[in-house]
Amino acid sequence: MAKELTSRSENYSQWYLDLVMKADLAENSAVRGCMVIKPYGYAIWEKMQAELDRMFKETGHQNAYFPLFIPKSFLSKEADHVEGFAKECAVVTHYRLKNDPNGGGVVVDPAAKLEEELIVRPTSETIIWNTYKNWIQSYRDLPILCNQWANVVRWEMRTRLFLRTAEFLWQEGHTAHATSEEALEETKKMLDVYADFAENFMAIPVIKGVKSANERFAGALDTYCIEALMQDGKALQAGTSHFLGQNFAKAFDVKFISKENKEEYVWASSWGVSTRLIGALIMTHSDDNGLVLPPNLAPYQVVIVPIYKSQEQLDEINKKVAEITPKLKALGISVKYDNADNKKPGWKFAEYELKGVPVRLAIGARDLENGTVEVARRDTLTKETVSLENIETYVKNLLTNIQQNIFQKAYDYRASVTREVNSYDEFKVEIEKGGFLLAHWDGMPETEEQIKTETKATIRCIPIEGDQTPGKCMVTGKPSAQRVVFARAY
Amino acid sequence: MAKELTSRSENYSQWYLDLVMKADLAENSAVRGCMVIKPYGYAIWEKMQAELDRMFKETGHQNAYFPLFIPKSFLSKEADHVEGFAKECAVVTHYRLKNDPNGGGVVVDPAAKLEEELIVRPTSETIIWNTYKNWIQSYRDLPILCNQWANVVRWEMRTRLFLRTAEFLWQEGHTAHATSEEALEETKKMLDVYADFAENFMAIPVIKGVKSANERFAGALDTYCIEALMQDGKALQAGTSHFLGQNFAKAFDVKFISKENKEEYVWASSWGVSTRLIGALIMTHSDDNGLVLPPNLAPYQVVIVPIYKSQEQLDEINKKVAEITPKLKALGISVKYDNADNKKPGWKFAEYELKGVPVRLAIGARDLENGTVEVARRDTLTKETVSLENIETYVKNLLTNIQQNIFQKAYDYRASVTREVNSYDEFKVEIEKGGFLLAHWDGMPETEEQIKTETKATIRCIPIEGDQTPGKCMVTGKPSAQRVVFARAY
Repeated sequence: MAKELTSRSENYSQWYLDLVMKADLAENSAVRGCMVIKPYGYAIWEKMQAELDRMFKETGHQNAYFPLFIPKSFLSKEADHVEGFAKECAVVTHYRLKNDPNGGGVVVDPAAKLEEELIVRPTSETIIWNTYKNWIQSYRDLPILCNQWANVVRWEMRTRLFLRTAEFLWQEGHTAHATSEEALEETKKMLDVYADFAENFMAIPVIKGVKSANERFAGALDTYCIEALMQDGKALQAGTSHFLGQNFAKAFDVKFISKENKEEYVWASSWGVSTRLIGALIMTHSDDNGLVLPPNLAPYQVVIVPIYKSQEQLDEINKKVAEITPKLKALGISVKYDNADNKKPGWKFAEYELKGVPVRLAIGARDLENGTVEVARRDTLTKETVSLENIETYVKNLLTNIQQNIFQKAYDYRASVTREVNSYDEFKVEIEKGGFLLAHWDGMPETEEQIKTETKATIRCIPIEGDQTPGKCMVTGKPSAQRVVFARAY
Repeated sequence: MAKELTSRSENYSQWYLDLVMKADLAENSAVRGCMVIKPYGYAIWEKMQAELDRMFKETGHQNAYFPLFIPKSFLSKEADHVEGFAKECAVVTHYRLKNDPNGGGVVVDPAAKLEEELIVRPTSETIIWNTYKNWIQSYRDLPILCNQWANVVRWEMRTRLFLRTAEFLWQEGHTAHATSEEALEETKKMLDVYADFAENFMAIPVIKGVKSANERFAGALDTYCIEALMQDGKALQAGTSHFLGQNFAKAFDVKFISKENKEEYVWASSWGVSTRLIGALIMTHSDDNGLVLPPNLAPYQVVIVPIYKSQEQLDEINKKVAEITPKLKALGISVKYDNADNKKPGWKFAEYELKGVPVRLAIGARDLENGTVEVARRDTLTKETVSLENIETYVKNLLTNIQQNIFQKAYDYRASVTREVNSYDEFKVEIEKGGFLLAHWDGMPETEEQIKTETKATIRCIPIEGDQTPGKCMVTGKPSAQRVVFARAY
């Protein structure tokens, strides 16, 4: 089974698609650009959701739900926003079908044309700020800290499962504040939540930074982001948190009476991560044998496979597994016991390797005699025979170890392909090798555009942490405030 | 605050709308027929989701996600289905906006017309069975037991918050089976899950039954349902589970090779409940003072309000509450402590009454002296002073008691307005009084239609349990297999 995967070295892009399909994560649907998220893929998304939702609530946010549709005129109210989103949206123009008078199935009923077209939300700032207008009168109504789990649609021309799809699932936080400082603090707080989630749950090291003007969210004053590096040396934006200033408050006329009894526009942030994270997860950790999942997000962390030659042996193994499983579960470990009789152990091994189950326990007749079990870890593909006594503690520690190891591996890889470059000539050579390049830039959109055109590299972010020594732009020689992060990106 | 509610006796319909708005559950949006579910309303939905999701998984189901859009031609593939759903759907015809050359904001770009229109899913049988076609080859691929949490759109002409909205949230289960028996068993099993949820979590007694042909889901062979009775004597369909036979398998050509090596069409079920349940919850239990929530679904089960005259008193009460709260939480009780200084106790009492918090604890200076607390229960609006010692056990038992009490109250009310009628004349008199009428019917759609036209009553269901003695139709005198349940309905 695993043999059917294209190897990464042969064709990274094909390897990714093979893996998404063969590990039963997702597939393309009959609707262009829209995917079907299959149960195994969705189970990973549920794990992500549960953890993020917990983190959002811990930081004082509540969930709510806003309409799928946005009146066309709303999009136009914020000038940058409409430029960014009008070009790729699904437009609802009618509300009824009727039988084709010529007998060709159903056709759009021309009598059921909407007075104003509705856009399927590409993001919900406009409809939400139109709603907040009614919720906010005084500083006492602030802050509003809402999050929404929803589907959104952006009519992307080139799509790729999880990474870029016309419809995707995400969460979008939308907050309203009395002051600029508070909105900016919220923006940064949520960036930290995303970074925490990426590093400690997804085991993906990320760089926190600010986008350049060219890469900013349409309607934001500043876009903060976490940037990850995939195994092929390309960057992937894993989450964004926007400081929206008063742009949407002005567009939708949302004012409040301040403590000082003055009427002011409300300050805003918005922030989101999407099913794209599943793409990042795959491309950061997986290998030519299949998925490698961090224990913190694996649908099941342990699979147990019996090795037997007779029903008697299987019965005995079943009995032993019935002893072990509750002990594992008592430590919060999720376990699947696969004693299905219609598949051979070798097939099962390959299948769970492909699906990235972090730990595999195999128990055979000799193990029963010796009181042992064969423990295989997915990240290193190593095996060892271990005593069944206190196996639950052993596995618990092993899972922690695997979580740390795959983070460290990703961290070391990123470190190995992150380097400073000091001239544009050097940059052009180095960018071909992939990875993050730290270089000086003069802060001008034109310079960034030139670099993008000539090298296909973009500024991933202006990093918040690390070396902030000024220098000179590698292209123009003009002053640069600090090195910024360049890469080719997904 | 609570005083602003219209009373039920004055105008039940207005009372409902007042309550939904004033208890911060939901509001109408700028998009016709689409609602905004506010945080407090959404928190109730999250509780419902968590419980239902647990029940679905316990019965072997997995979540997945299918596209929002359905190609227009898919709808036409099942003859009854298209009749049922084509008349009220949102149709996407274009995928881009552009700047109005006349400067009037953005307009639909006529160059971006879709070759085939896309329908925003009103329900997902078609897109899912088109997908299942690729998942199913052999009996070994069966059963498939998928559920999806999603938004759907039905362009209803008359909408009402939660009860009937153009967009609503729901779950839809879609299962595929090798035999008719198995599909039917699944259909009934999920009906039982819904009934269990309605009665034990929502505290709403329901009648399980089968719909008459007139009321069947478009495309089903049989629709099973749970029917609830609201306080105004009108019925509300709270959940449906459909036995789809091979209709969708035939429409989408989904066949499998059976154990006997024969090619056969796959058997199907689908089942769903929606945010409509929140409407049912409100209309079953609430009163003129506001919401009454069953403890099993209340966003917080207990609110604690301090009564104080000085900062010193408040400090002492805070200290005491800090002792009590962890004890309550340790028993799994959700608690909110509202010691906000800008609202008076009386305001808080009214607010939490309006919001249906099951138990309110009020602690004042004298309580501190006496080691007591005032416990108020929302369902009976009664108060008593109780020792703080073991207050957590007291509250735990009280919550169980409230859950049972509101179920019993709803049960008794339903019993009081459920009666047998034996002639059509009697029926016409009784139906004006509301409630469930058990009457004999000859099984003919025409008779049912006549009754509906003349009395506005529909057959809610042919009940599965209870008296199944045959008789004679109250309208035609023809033979009737058993009494069926009539009511006017939402």
